[in-house]
Amino acid sequence: MSNEVKSIGIIGLGSMGMGAAKSCINAGLDVYGIDLNEAALATLSDAGAKAVSTNALDFSQQLDAVLVLVVNAKQVNTVLFKTGLAASLKPKTVVMVSATISADDAKQIEQQLNSYDLIMLDAPVSGGAAKAATGDMTIMASGSAEAFSKLKPVLDATAAKVYNIGEQIGLGATVKIIHQLLAGVHIAVGAEAMALAARANIPLDLMYDVVTNAAGNSWMFENRMKHVVDGDYSPKSMVDIFVKDLNLVADTAKDLQFPLQLSSTALNMFISASNAGHGQEDDSAVIKVFDGITLPGVEK
Amino acid sequence: MSNEVKSIGIIGLGSMGMGAAKSCINAGLDVYGIDLNEAALATLSDAGAKAVSTNALDFSQQLDAVLVLVVNAKQVNTVLFKTGLAASLKPKTVVMVSATISADDAKQIEQQLNSYDLIMLDAPVSGGAAKAATGDMTIMASGSAEAFSKLKPVLDATAAKVYNIGEQIGLGATVKIIHQLLAGVHIAVGAEAMALAARANIPLDLMYDVVTNAAGNSWMFENRMKHVVDGDYSPKSMVDIFVKDLNLVADTAKDLQFPLQLSSTALNMFISASNAGHGQEDDSAVIKVFDGITLPGVEK
Repeated sequence: MSNEVKSIGIIGLGSMGMGAAKSCINAGLDVYGIDLNEAALATLSDAGAKAVSTNALDFSQQLDAVLVLVVNAKQVNTVLFKTGLAASLKPKTVVMVSATISADDAKQIEQQLNSYDLIMLDAPVSGGAAKAATGDMTIMASGSAEAFSKLKPVLDATAAKVYNIGEQIGLGATVKIIHQLLAGVHIAVGAEAMALAARANIPLDLMYDVVTNAAGNSWMFENRMKHVVDGDYSPKSMVDIFVKDLNLVADTAKDLQFPLQLSSTALNMFISASNAGHGQEDDSAVIKVFDGITLPGVEK
Repeated sequence: MSNEVKSIGIIGLGSMGMGAAKSCINAGLDVYGIDLNEAALATLSDAGAKAVSTNALDFSQQLDAVLVLVVNAKQVNTVLFKTGLAASLKPKTVVMVSATISADDAKQIEQQLNSYDLIMLDAPVSGGAAKAATGDMTIMASGSAEAFSKLKPVLDATAAKVYNIGEQIGLGATVKIIHQLLAGVHIAVGAEAMALAARANIPLDLMYDVVTNAAGNSWMFENRMKHVVDGDYSPKSMVDIFVKDLNLVADTAKDLQFPLQLSSTALNMFISASNAGHGQEDDSAVIKVFDGITLPGVEK
Protein backbone atom coordinates (compact mmCIF):
# COMPACT_ATOMS: atom_id res chain seq x y z
CA MET A 1 0.00 0.00 0.00
CA SER A 2 1.32 3.39 -0.97
CA ASN A 3 2.28 5.78 1.77
CA GLU A 4 1.30 8.76 -0.37
CA VAL A 5 -0.86 11.40 1.26
CA LYS A 6 -4.56 11.54 0.40
CA SER A 7 -5.56 14.65 2.31
CA ILE A 8 -3.87 18.00 2.75
CA GLY A 9 -4.50 21.17 4.71
CA ILE A 10 -3.39 24.30 2.88
CA ILE A 11 -2.62 27.28 5.09
CA GLY A 12 -2.53 30.65 3.37
CA LEU A 13 -4.97 31.14 0.51
CA GLY A 14 -3.33 34.07 -1.24
CA SER A 15 -2.73 33.87 -4.98
CA MET A 16 -0.12 31.11 -4.65
CA GLY A 17 -1.94 29.09 -1.97
CA MET A 18 -5.30 29.32 -3.74
CA GLY A 19 -3.75 28.09 -6.99
CA ALA A 20 -2.02 25.21 -5.22
CA ALA A 21 -5.22 24.28 -3.36
CA LYS A 22 -7.32 24.19 -6.53
CA SER A 23 -4.63 22.13 -8.29
CA CYS A 24 -4.76 19.61 -5.43
CA ILE A 25 -8.58 19.43 -5.69
CA ASN A 26 -8.28 18.85 -9.45
CA ALA A 27 -5.81 16.03 -8.76
CA GLY A 28 -8.36 14.27 -6.54
CA LEU A 29 -6.88 15.05 -3.14
CA ASP A 30 -9.04 15.87 -0.11
CA VAL A 31 -8.26 19.54 0.42
CA TYR A 32 -8.85 21.51 3.63
CA GLY A 33 -8.40 25.28 3.41
CA ILE A 34 -7.19 27.53 6.21
CA ASP A 35 -7.03 31.34 6.05
CA LEU A 36 -8.15 34.34 8.08
CA ASN A 37 -9.88 35.75 4.99
CA GLU A 38 -13.49 34.47 4.87
CA ALA A 39 -13.89 35.41 1.20
CA ALA A 40 -10.92 33.21 0.26
CA LEU A 41 -12.41 30.36 2.31
CA ALA A 42 -15.73 30.71 0.48
CA THR A 43 -13.97 30.66 -2.90
CA LEU A 44 -12.11 27.48 -2.05
CA SER A 45 -15.22 25.88 -0.60
CA ASP A 46 -17.06 26.54 -3.87
CA ALA A 47 -14.11 25.03 -5.74
CA GLY A 48 -14.62 21.71 -3.97
CA ALA A 49 -12.67 21.77 -0.71
CA LYS A 50 -13.66 19.10 1.87
CA ALA A 51 -13.80 21.81 4.53
CA VAL A 52 -12.52 25.31 5.22
CA SER A 53 -11.90 27.19 8.44
CA THR A 54 -10.01 30.05 10.04
CA ASN A 55 -8.81 27.46 12.56
CA ALA A 56 -6.87 24.40 11.37
CA LEU A 57 -7.60 22.59 14.65
CA ASP A 58 -11.13 21.99 13.32
CA PHE A 59 -9.82 19.19 11.09
CA SER A 60 -6.20 18.58 12.08
CA GLN A 61 -6.86 14.85 12.66
CA GLN A 62 -8.06 14.43 9.05
CA LEU A 63 -4.81 15.67 7.53
CA ASP A 64 -2.02 13.49 6.06
CA ALA A 65 -0.07 16.60 5.11
CA VAL A 66 0.04 20.36 5.54
CA LEU A 67 1.20 22.92 2.95
CA VAL A 68 2.18 26.28 4.42
CA LEU A 69 2.09 29.12 1.89
CA VAL A 70 2.28 32.22 4.07
CA VAL A 71 4.56 35.25 3.63
CA ASN A 72 7.45 34.87 6.11
CA ALA A 73 9.02 32.82 8.91
CA LYS A 74 7.10 34.63 11.64
CA GLN A 75 3.81 33.64 10.03
CA VAL A 76 5.01 30.04 9.58
CA ASN A 77 5.80 29.86 13.29
CA THR A 78 2.44 31.37 14.19
CA VAL A 79 0.29 29.05 12.06
CA LEU A 80 2.19 25.89 12.99
CA PHE A 81 3.05 26.37 16.64
CA LYS A 82 1.25 29.32 18.29
CA THR A 83 -2.12 27.99 17.15
CA GLY A 84 -1.35 24.54 18.61
CA LEU A 85 -1.64 22.90 15.18
CA ALA A 86 1.66 20.99 15.33
CA ALA A 87 0.65 19.45 18.66
CA SER A 88 -2.70 18.28 17.26
CA LEU A 89 -1.52 16.69 13.98
CA LYS A 90 -1.20 12.91 13.66
CA PRO A 91 2.38 11.61 14.10
CA LYS A 92 4.37 11.43 10.82
CA THR A 93 2.20 14.05 9.14
CA VAL A 94 4.32 15.78 6.46
CA VAL A 95 4.57 19.57 6.62
CA MET A 96 5.63 21.25 3.39
CA VAL A 97 6.94 24.73 4.19
CA SER A 98 6.82 26.86 1.04
CA ALA A 99 7.28 30.38 2.38
CA THR A 100 10.49 32.20 1.42
CA ILE A 101 12.48 32.00 4.68
CA SER A 102 16.12 31.77 5.76
CA ALA A 103 17.96 28.45 6.04
CA ASP A 104 18.31 29.09 9.79
CA ASP A 105 14.57 29.60 10.19
CA ALA A 106 13.93 26.45 8.15
CA LYS A 107 16.22 24.45 10.48
CA GLN A 108 14.56 25.86 13.61
CA ILE A 109 11.11 25.02 12.24
CA GLU A 110 12.33 21.49 11.45
CA GLN A 111 13.56 21.01 15.03
CA GLN A 112 10.20 22.04 16.42
CA LEU A 113 8.28 19.85 13.95
CA ASN A 114 10.53 16.89 14.83
CA SER A 115 9.75 17.38 18.51
CA TYR A 116 6.10 16.63 17.59
CA ASP A 117 7.17 13.62 15.45
CA LEU A 118 6.26 15.50 12.26
CA ILE A 119 8.22 15.40 8.95
CA MET A 120 9.30 18.58 7.16
CA LEU A 121 9.91 19.35 3.48
CA ASP A 122 11.78 22.63 2.96
CA ALA A 123 10.03 23.56 -0.27
CA PRO A 124 10.04 27.15 -1.50
CA VAL A 125 8.14 27.81 -4.71
CA SER A 126 8.47 30.17 -7.66
CA GLY A 127 6.45 31.03 -10.73
CA GLY A 128 3.91 33.59 -9.57
CA ALA A 129 0.12 33.45 -9.42
CA ALA A 130 -0.33 32.39 -13.06
CA LYS A 131 1.77 29.22 -12.73
CA ALA A 132 0.25 28.41 -9.33
CA ALA A 133 -3.22 28.56 -10.91
CA THR A 134 -2.32 26.01 -13.57
CA GLY A 135 -0.37 23.66 -11.28
CA ASP A 136 2.89 24.65 -12.96
CA MET A 137 4.94 26.07 -10.08
CA THR A 138 8.66 25.45 -9.76
CA ILE A 139 9.49 23.84 -6.40
CA MET A 140 13.06 23.78 -5.04
CA ALA A 141 12.96 21.35 -2.15
CA SER A 142 15.18 19.62 0.38
CA GLY A 143 14.28 16.92 2.89
CA SER A 144 14.14 13.19 3.49
CA ALA A 145 13.23 10.65 0.83
CA GLU A 146 10.19 9.87 2.99
CA ALA A 147 9.00 13.47 2.80
CA PHE A 148 9.36 13.58 -0.98
CA SER A 149 7.68 10.21 -1.41
CA LYS A 150 4.68 10.94 0.83
CA LEU A 151 4.14 14.34 -0.79
CA LYS A 152 4.42 13.04 -4.36
CA PRO A 153 0.70 13.59 -5.21
CA VAL A 154 0.94 17.18 -3.94
CA LEU A 155 4.17 17.92 -5.82
CA ASP A 156 2.73 16.35 -8.99
CA ALA A 157 -0.47 18.38 -8.67
CA THR A 158 1.11 21.78 -8.05
CA ALA A 159 4.45 21.83 -9.87
CA ALA A 160 5.73 21.56 -13.44
CA LYS A 161 9.25 21.10 -12.08
CA VAL A 162 10.44 19.80 -8.70
CA TYR A 163 14.13 20.11 -7.83
CA ASN A 164 15.49 17.81 -5.13
CA ILE A 165 18.38 19.84 -3.73
CA GLY A 166 19.38 17.34 -1.08
CA GLU A 167 18.42 15.85 2.29
CA GLN A 168 19.40 18.71 4.53
CA ILE A 169 16.65 21.12 5.56
CA GLY A 170 17.80 24.65 4.67
CA LEU A 171 19.15 23.82 1.21
CA GLY A 172 15.77 24.48 -0.39
CA ALA A 173 15.52 27.79 1.44
CA THR A 174 19.03 28.75 0.35
CA VAL A 175 18.41 27.97 -3.34
CA LYS A 176 15.27 30.10 -3.24
CA ILE A 177 17.17 32.96 -1.59
CA ILE A 178 19.93 32.80 -4.24
CA HIS A 179 17.21 32.86 -6.88
CA GLN A 180 15.72 35.96 -5.23
CA LEU A 181 19.19 37.57 -5.19
CA LEU A 182 19.17 37.37 -8.99
CA ALA A 183 15.55 38.43 -9.34
CA GLY A 184 16.02 41.45 -7.07
CA VAL A 185 19.24 42.66 -8.66
CA HIS A 186 17.76 42.18 -12.13
CA ILE A 187 14.82 44.46 -11.25
CA ALA A 188 17.11 47.05 -9.67
CA VAL A 189 19.56 47.10 -12.59
CA GLY A 190 16.66 47.21 -15.04
CA ALA A 191 15.55 50.35 -13.20
CA GLU A 192 19.10 51.74 -13.26
CA ALA A 193 19.35 51.19 -17.03
CA MET A 194 15.92 52.65 -17.81
CA ALA A 195 16.60 55.65 -15.54
CA LEU A 196 19.85 56.31 -17.43
CA ALA A 197 17.95 56.02 -20.72
CA ALA A 198 15.45 58.62 -19.46
CA ARG A 199 18.32 60.88 -18.41
CA ALA A 200 19.88 60.53 -21.89
CA ASN A 201 16.55 61.29 -23.62
CA ILE A 202 16.29 57.82 -25.14
CA PRO A 203 12.60 56.93 -25.67
CA LEU A 204 11.90 54.26 -23.02
CA ASP A 205 9.72 52.12 -25.26
CA LEU A 206 12.54 51.96 -27.81
CA MET A 207 15.13 51.13 -25.11
CA TYR A 208 12.82 48.38 -23.84
CA ASP A 209 12.42 47.01 -27.35
CA VAL A 210 16.20 46.96 -27.99
CA VAL A 211 17.04 45.23 -24.70
CA THR A 212 14.31 42.60 -24.93
CA ASN A 213 15.63 41.66 -28.39
CA ALA A 214 19.28 41.47 -27.35
CA ALA A 215 21.72 39.84 -24.94
CA GLY A 216 21.06 42.42 -22.19
CA ASN A 217 17.65 40.93 -21.49
CA SER A 218 16.49 39.22 -18.30
CA TRP A 219 13.17 37.64 -17.33
CA MET A 220 12.67 40.42 -14.79
CA PHE A 221 13.68 43.23 -17.19
CA GLU A 222 11.14 42.04 -19.74
CA ASN A 223 8.39 41.57 -17.14
CA ARG A 224 8.92 44.56 -14.83
CA MET A 225 10.34 47.33 -17.04
CA LYS A 226 7.15 47.07 -19.13
CA HIS A 227 5.43 48.59 -16.09
CA VAL A 228 7.88 51.52 -16.23
CA VAL A 229 7.26 52.02 -19.98
CA ASP A 230 3.50 51.98 -19.28
CA GLY A 231 3.81 54.13 -16.14
CA ASP A 232 1.74 51.52 -14.26
CA TYR A 233 2.93 50.87 -10.71
CA SER A 234 -0.14 49.00 -9.47
CA PRO A 235 1.39 46.19 -7.45
CA LYS A 236 1.83 42.75 -9.01
CA SER A 237 4.64 42.11 -6.51
CA MET A 238 5.56 44.92 -4.12
CA VAL A 239 8.79 46.82 -3.38
CA ASP A 240 8.55 45.67 0.26
CA ILE A 241 8.69 42.00 -0.80
CA PHE A 242 12.18 42.63 -2.18
CA VAL A 243 13.15 44.58 0.94
CA LYS A 244 12.27 41.35 2.79
CA ASP A 245 13.86 38.93 0.29
CA LEU A 246 17.10 40.89 -0.19
CA ASN A 247 17.34 41.13 3.60
CA LEU A 248 17.18 37.31 3.63
CA VAL A 249 20.04 37.39 1.09
CA ALA A 250 21.97 39.70 3.45
CA ASP A 251 21.29 37.37 6.41
CA THR A 252 22.55 34.44 4.35
CA ALA A 253 25.68 36.41 3.43
CA LYS A 254 26.28 37.14 7.10
CA ASP A 255 25.75 33.51 8.18
CA LEU A 256 28.16 32.26 5.50
CA GLN A 257 30.59 35.20 5.89
CA PHE A 258 30.44 36.05 2.23
CA PRO A 259 30.60 39.44 0.46
CA LEU A 260 27.64 40.23 -1.81
CA GLN A 261 28.21 43.73 -3.11
CA LEU A 262 25.64 43.85 -5.90
CA SER A 263 22.88 42.38 -3.72
CA SER A 264 23.55 44.79 -0.87
CA THR A 265 23.49 47.73 -3.29
CA ALA A 266 20.16 46.54 -4.72
CA LEU A 267 18.79 46.07 -1.18
CA ASN A 268 19.64 49.68 -0.38
CA MET A 269 17.82 50.81 -3.53
CA PHE A 270 14.64 48.95 -2.49
CA ILE A 271 14.93 50.27 1.09
CA SER A 272 15.26 53.82 -0.27
CA ALA A 273 12.20 53.32 -2.49
CA SER A 274 10.23 51.99 0.47
CA ASN A 275 11.30 54.86 2.72
CA ALA A 276 10.27 57.33 -0.01
CA GLY A 277 6.74 55.95 0.29
CA HIS A 278 6.73 53.39 -2.54
CA GLY A 279 6.83 50.19 -0.44
CA GLN A 280 3.33 49.08 -1.42
CA GLU A 281 3.76 49.85 -5.12
CA ASP A 282 4.92 47.41 -7.79
CA ASP A 283 8.57 46.49 -7.29
CA SER A 284 9.44 48.27 -10.56
CA ALA A 285 8.82 51.49 -8.56
CA VAL A 286 12.40 51.07 -7.32
CA ILE A 287 13.17 53.29 -10.33
CA LYS A 288 11.63 56.19 -8.37
CA VAL A 289 14.81 56.41 -6.26
CA PHE A 290 16.36 58.30 -9.20
CA ASP A 291 15.90 62.07 -9.28
CA GLY A 292 16.52 64.32 -12.27
CA ILE A 293 14.52 62.27 -14.77
CA THR A 294 10.99 62.29 -16.16
CA LEU A 295 9.17 58.95 -16.26
CA PRO A 296 5.84 58.04 -17.91
CA GLY A 297 2.99 58.43 -15.41
CA VAL A 298 5.19 59.74 -12.58
CA GLU A 299 4.80 63.28 -11.23
CA LYS A 300 7.66 64.77 -9.24
CA MET B 1 17.76 56.49 -59.48
CA SER B 2 18.38 55.12 -56.06
CA ASN B 3 21.05 56.72 -53.91
CA GLU B 4 21.75 53.42 -52.19
CA VAL B 5 25.38 52.39 -51.87
CA LYS B 6 26.74 49.70 -54.17
CA SER B 7 30.23 49.32 -52.74
CA ILE B 8 31.49 49.22 -49.18
CA GLY B 9 34.85 49.07 -47.47
CA ILE B 10 34.80 47.08 -44.25
CA ILE B 11 37.53 47.95 -41.76
CA GLY B 12 38.18 45.37 -39.05
CA LEU B 13 37.75 41.75 -40.07
CA GLY B 14 37.38 40.18 -36.63
CA SER B 15 34.48 37.80 -35.99
CA MET B 16 31.86 40.57 -36.31
CA GLY B 17 33.44 42.37 -39.28
CA MET B 18 34.11 39.16 -41.19
CA GLY B 19 30.48 38.08 -40.73
CA ALA B 20 29.20 41.47 -41.86
CA ALA B 21 31.54 41.47 -44.88
CA LYS B 22 30.45 38.04 -46.04
CA SER B 23 26.79 39.01 -45.58
CA CYS B 24 27.37 42.06 -47.80
CA ILE B 25 29.02 39.88 -50.47
CA ASN B 26 26.05 37.48 -50.34
CA ALA B 27 23.72 40.46 -50.81
CA GLY B 28 25.52 41.40 -54.03
CA LEU B 29 27.46 44.43 -52.82
CA ASP B 30 31.02 45.17 -53.96
CA VAL B 31 33.01 44.52 -50.79
CA TYR B 32 36.52 45.78 -50.04
CA GLY B 33 38.20 44.35 -46.93
CA ILE B 34 40.72 46.18 -44.75
CA ASP B 35 42.60 44.63 -41.83
CA LEU B 36 46.19 44.32 -40.58
CA ASN B 37 45.76 40.53 -40.40
CA GLU B 38 46.80 38.99 -43.74
CA ALA B 39 45.05 35.69 -42.96
CA ALA B 40 41.72 37.49 -42.51
CA LEU B 41 42.28 39.34 -45.79
CA ALA B 42 42.93 36.03 -47.59
CA THR B 43 39.77 34.51 -46.11
CA LEU B 44 37.65 37.43 -47.28
CA SER B 45 39.30 37.44 -50.69
CA ASP B 46 38.41 33.76 -51.11
CA ALA B 47 34.84 34.59 -50.07
CA GLY B 48 34.46 36.94 -53.03
CA ALA B 49 35.69 40.38 -52.00
CA LYS B 50 36.45 42.82 -54.85
CA ALA B 51 39.77 43.62 -53.23
CA VAL B 52 41.50 43.44 -49.86
CA SER B 53 44.38 45.40 -48.38
CA THR B 54 46.07 46.47 -45.16
CA ASN B 55 45.73 50.01 -46.50
CA ALA B 56 42.29 51.40 -47.34
CA LEU B 57 43.84 54.16 -49.46
CA ASP B 58 44.40 51.50 -52.13
CA PHE B 59 40.72 51.68 -53.12
CA SER B 60 39.22 54.62 -51.24
CA GLN B 61 37.92 56.19 -54.46
CA GLN B 62 35.89 53.03 -55.24
CA LEU B 63 33.89 53.17 -51.99
CA ASP B 64 30.32 54.48 -51.60
CA ALA B 65 30.39 53.59 -47.90
CA VAL B 66 32.69 52.46 -45.10
CA LEU B 67 31.78 50.18 -42.19
CA VAL B 68 34.12 50.46 -39.21
CA LEU B 69 34.03 47.41 -36.93
CA VAL B 70 37.08 47.88 -34.73
CA VAL B 71 37.31 47.60 -30.93
CA ASN B 72 37.31 51.13 -29.53
CA ALA B 73 37.26 54.88 -30.25
CA LYS B 74 41.03 55.14 -30.48
CA GLN B 75 41.09 52.55 -33.25
CA VAL B 76 38.20 54.31 -35.05
CA ASN B 77 40.19 57.55 -35.03
CA THR B 78 43.31 55.79 -36.26
CA VAL B 79 41.69 53.96 -39.18
CA LEU B 80 39.62 56.94 -40.35
CA PHE B 81 41.89 59.92 -39.75
CA LYS B 82 45.51 58.98 -38.96
CA THR B 83 45.71 56.83 -42.10
CA GLY B 84 44.41 59.70 -44.24
CA LEU B 85 41.36 57.68 -45.32
CA ALA B 86 38.76 60.34 -44.52
CA ALA B 87 40.65 62.85 -46.64
CA SER B 88 40.76 60.48 -49.60
CA LEU B 89 37.12 59.31 -49.68
CA LYS B 90 34.66 60.75 -52.20
CA PRO B 91 32.43 63.55 -50.80
CA LYS B 92 29.14 62.28 -49.29
CA THR B 93 30.55 58.81 -48.64
CA VAL B 94 28.64 57.30 -45.68
CA VAL B 95 30.70 56.05 -42.75
CA MET B 96 28.94 53.57 -40.48
CA VAL B 97 30.73 53.50 -37.13
CA SER B 98 29.85 50.26 -35.32
CA ALA B 99 32.45 50.10 -32.56
CA THR B 100 31.19 50.42 -28.96
CA ILE B 101 32.25 53.99 -28.11
CA SER B 102 31.01 56.86 -25.96
CA ALA B 103 28.45 59.38 -27.21
CA ASP B 104 31.11 62.09 -26.87
CA ASP B 105 33.54 60.16 -29.03
CA ALA B 106 30.78 59.55 -31.58
CA LYS B 107 30.10 63.30 -31.74
CA GLN B 108 33.78 64.16 -32.13
CA ILE B 109 34.14 61.62 -34.91
CA GLU B 110 31.06 63.09 -36.61
CA GLN B 111 32.57 66.60 -36.50
CA GLN B 112 35.76 65.38 -38.13
CA LEU B 113 33.86 63.38 -40.78
CA ASN B 114 31.69 66.42 -41.54
CA SER B 115 34.81 68.51 -42.05
CA TYR B 116 35.64 66.16 -44.95
CA ASP B 117 32.03 66.36 -46.25
CA LEU B 118 31.39 62.75 -45.17
CA ILE B 119 28.15 61.42 -43.60
CA MET B 120 28.13 59.40 -40.36
CA LEU B 121 25.80 56.72 -39.05
CA ASP B 122 26.31 56.06 -35.31
CA ALA B 123 25.54 52.34 -35.48
CA PRO B 124 26.69 50.00 -32.71
CA VAL B 125 25.87 46.33 -33.17
CA SER B 126 25.05 43.41 -30.92
CA GLY B 127 24.47 39.71 -31.36
CA GLY B 128 27.92 38.14 -31.30
CA ALA B 129 29.87 36.27 -33.96
CA ALA B 130 27.10 33.76 -34.69
CA LYS B 131 24.51 36.38 -35.63
CA ALA B 132 27.09 38.40 -37.58
CA ALA B 133 27.87 35.30 -39.65
CA THR B 134 24.23 34.84 -40.65
CA GLY B 135 23.49 38.52 -41.28
CA ASP B 136 21.27 38.66 -38.20
CA MET B 137 22.94 41.31 -36.06
CA THR B 138 20.96 43.85 -34.05
CA ILE B 139 21.90 47.41 -35.02
CA MET B 140 20.98 50.38 -32.80
CA ALA B 141 21.61 53.43 -34.94
CA SER B 142 21.23 57.19 -35.00
CA GLY B 143 21.87 59.62 -37.82
CA SER B 144 20.29 61.47 -40.71
CA ALA B 145 17.56 60.04 -42.93
CA GLU B 146 20.12 60.29 -45.77
CA ALA B 147 22.58 58.06 -43.89
CA PHE B 148 19.90 55.43 -43.20
CA SER B 149 18.64 55.55 -46.75
CA LYS B 150 22.04 55.28 -48.45
CA LEU B 151 23.09 52.42 -46.15
CA LYS B 152 19.85 50.45 -46.57
CA PRO B 153 21.49 47.59 -48.59
CA VAL B 154 24.18 47.21 -45.91
CA LEU B 155 21.68 47.31 -43.03
CA ASP B 156 19.43 44.80 -44.81
CA ALA B 157 22.37 42.49 -45.49
CA THR B 158 23.87 42.46 -42.00
CA ALA B 159 21.00 42.90 -39.53
CA ALA B 160 17.85 41.08 -38.52
CA LYS B 161 16.75 44.18 -36.62
CA VAL B 162 17.66 47.84 -37.13
CA TYR B 163 16.56 50.36 -34.51
CA ASN B 164 16.40 54.00 -35.58
CA ILE B 165 17.01 55.80 -32.28
CA GLY B 166 16.88 59.30 -33.71
CA GLU B 167 18.79 61.85 -35.79
CA GLN B 168 21.36 62.92 -33.24
CA ILE B 169 24.76 61.22 -33.42
CA GLY B 170 25.53 59.79 -29.96
CA LEU B 171 22.09 58.29 -29.33
CA GLY B 172 23.09 55.01 -30.94
CA ALA B 173 26.27 54.91 -28.86
CA THR B 174 24.28 55.63 -25.69
CA VAL B 175 21.72 52.89 -26.32
CA LYS B 176 24.54 50.40 -26.85
CA ILE B 177 26.25 51.53 -23.65
CA ILE B 178 23.01 51.15 -21.65
CA HIS B 179 22.67 47.70 -23.16
CA GLN B 180 26.22 46.87 -22.03
CA LEU B 181 25.37 48.18 -18.54
CA LEU B 182 22.73 45.45 -18.29
CA ALA B 183 24.92 42.78 -19.90
CA GLY B 184 27.85 43.54 -17.58
CA VAL B 185 25.82 43.64 -14.37
CA HIS B 186 24.00 40.46 -15.36
CA ILE B 187 27.32 38.61 -15.73
CA ALA B 188 28.64 40.02 -12.45
CA VAL B 189 25.48 39.19 -10.48
CA GLY B 190 25.37 35.74 -12.07
CA ALA B 191 28.87 35.26 -10.69
CA GLU B 192 27.82 36.62 -7.28
CA ALA B 193 24.88 34.19 -7.13
CA MET B 194 26.88 31.16 -8.26
CA ALA B 195 29.69 32.03 -5.83
CA LEU B 196 27.16 32.16 -2.98
CA ALA B 197 25.77 28.81 -4.12
CA ALA B 198 29.29 27.34 -4.01
CA ARG B 199 29.79 28.81 -0.52
CA ALA B 200 26.49 27.23 0.62
CA ASN B 201 27.42 23.83 -0.85
CA ILE B 202 24.64 23.91 -3.44
CA PRO B 203 25.68 21.86 -6.51
CA LEU B 204 26.33 24.48 -9.20
CA ASP B 205 24.76 22.47 -12.02
CA LEU B 206 21.56 22.20 -9.99
CA MET B 207 21.59 25.92 -9.16
CA TYR B 208 22.10 26.68 -12.86
CA ASP B 209 19.20 24.41 -13.78
CA VAL B 210 16.84 26.04 -11.24
CA VAL B 211 17.66 29.61 -12.29
CA THR B 212 17.45 28.96 -16.02
CA ASN B 213 13.96 27.50 -15.48
CA ALA B 214 12.71 30.35 -13.31
CA ALA B 215 12.18 34.10 -13.14
CA GLY B 216 15.75 34.74 -11.95
CA ASN B 217 17.14 33.99 -15.40
CA SER B 218 18.90 36.38 -17.76
CA TRP B 219 20.35 35.90 -21.24
CA MET B 220 23.84 36.41 -19.79
CA PHE B 221 23.26 34.10 -16.79
CA GLU B 222 22.19 31.28 -19.10
CA ASN B 223 25.06 31.87 -21.55
CA ARG B 224 27.98 32.69 -19.22
CA MET B 225 27.31 30.74 -16.00
CA LYS B 226 27.39 27.55 -18.11
CA HIS B 227 31.12 28.27 -18.44
CA VAL B 228 31.39 28.35 -14.62
CA VAL B 229 29.49 25.05 -14.28
CA ASP B 230 31.82 23.52 -16.90
CA GLY B 231 34.94 25.16 -15.42
CA ASP B 232 35.80 26.44 -18.91
CA TYR B 233 37.20 29.98 -18.97
CA SER B 234 38.58 29.93 -22.53
CA PRO B 235 37.60 33.37 -23.80
CA LYS B 236 34.44 33.80 -25.87
CA SER B 237 34.34 37.46 -24.74
CA MET B 238 37.02 38.63 -22.29
CA VAL B 239 36.93 40.20 -18.82
CA ASP B 240 38.84 43.20 -20.20
CA ILE B 241 36.04 43.93 -22.71
CA PHE B 242 33.71 44.58 -19.78
CA VAL B 243 36.36 46.66 -18.01
CA LYS B 244 36.26 48.79 -21.17
CA ASP B 245 32.47 48.78 -21.64
CA LEU B 246 31.59 49.43 -17.98
CA ASN B 247 34.13 52.27 -18.02
CA LEU B 248 32.13 53.69 -20.97
CA VAL B 249 29.05 53.36 -18.75
CA ALA B 250 30.90 55.25 -16.00
CA ASP B 251 31.95 57.98 -18.46
CA THR B 252 28.32 58.29 -19.57
CA ALA B 253 27.21 58.57 -15.94
CA LYS B 254 29.75 61.32 -15.37
CA ASP B 255 28.75 63.24 -18.51
CA LEU B 256 25.06 63.07 -17.56
CA GLN B 257 25.71 63.54 -13.81
CA PHE B 258 23.80 60.43 -12.91
CA PRO B 259 24.40 57.87 -10.11
CA LEU B 260 24.83 54.26 -11.28
CA GLN B 261 25.59 52.24 -8.18
CA LEU B 262 25.10 48.73 -9.52
CA SER B 263 27.13 49.41 -12.68
CA SER B 264 30.02 50.94 -10.74
CA THR B 265 30.04 47.96 -8.36
CA ALA B 266 30.12 45.55 -11.30
CA LEU B 267 32.91 47.59 -12.94
CA ASN B 268 34.99 47.23 -9.78
CA MET B 269 34.44 43.47 -9.83
CA PHE B 270 35.70 43.22 -13.43
CA ILE B 271 38.68 45.51 -12.64
CA SER B 272 39.57 43.30 -9.65
CA ALA B 273 39.34 40.18 -11.83
CA SER B 274 41.59 41.80 -14.44
CA ASN B 275 44.13 42.92 -11.84
CA ALA B 276 44.19 39.38 -10.42
CA GLY B 277 45.41 38.18 -13.81
CA HIS B 278 42.13 37.11 -15.42
CA GLY B 279 41.71 39.96 -17.93
CA GLN B 280 42.23 37.76 -20.99
CA GLU B 281 39.97 34.95 -19.74
CA ASP B 282 36.26 34.57 -20.51
CA ASP B 283 34.23 37.31 -18.80
CA SER B 284 32.60 34.68 -16.57
CA ALA B 285 36.01 34.55 -14.81
CA VAL B 286 34.80 37.61 -12.86
CA ILE B 287 33.61 34.92 -10.38
CA LYS B 288 37.29 34.40 -9.48
CA VAL B 289 37.22 37.61 -7.42
CA PHE B 290 35.51 35.55 -4.69
CA ASP B 291 37.75 33.75 -2.20
CA GLY B 292 36.69 31.00 0.19
CA ILE B 293 34.91 28.86 -2.40
CA THR B 294 35.76 25.89 -4.59
CA LEU B 295 34.77 26.11 -8.27
CA PRO B 296 34.87 23.43 -11.00
CA GLY B 297 38.19 23.55 -12.84
CA VAL B 298 39.67 26.33 -10.71
CA GLU B 299 42.71 25.78 -8.49
CA LYS B 300 43.40 28.26 -5.70
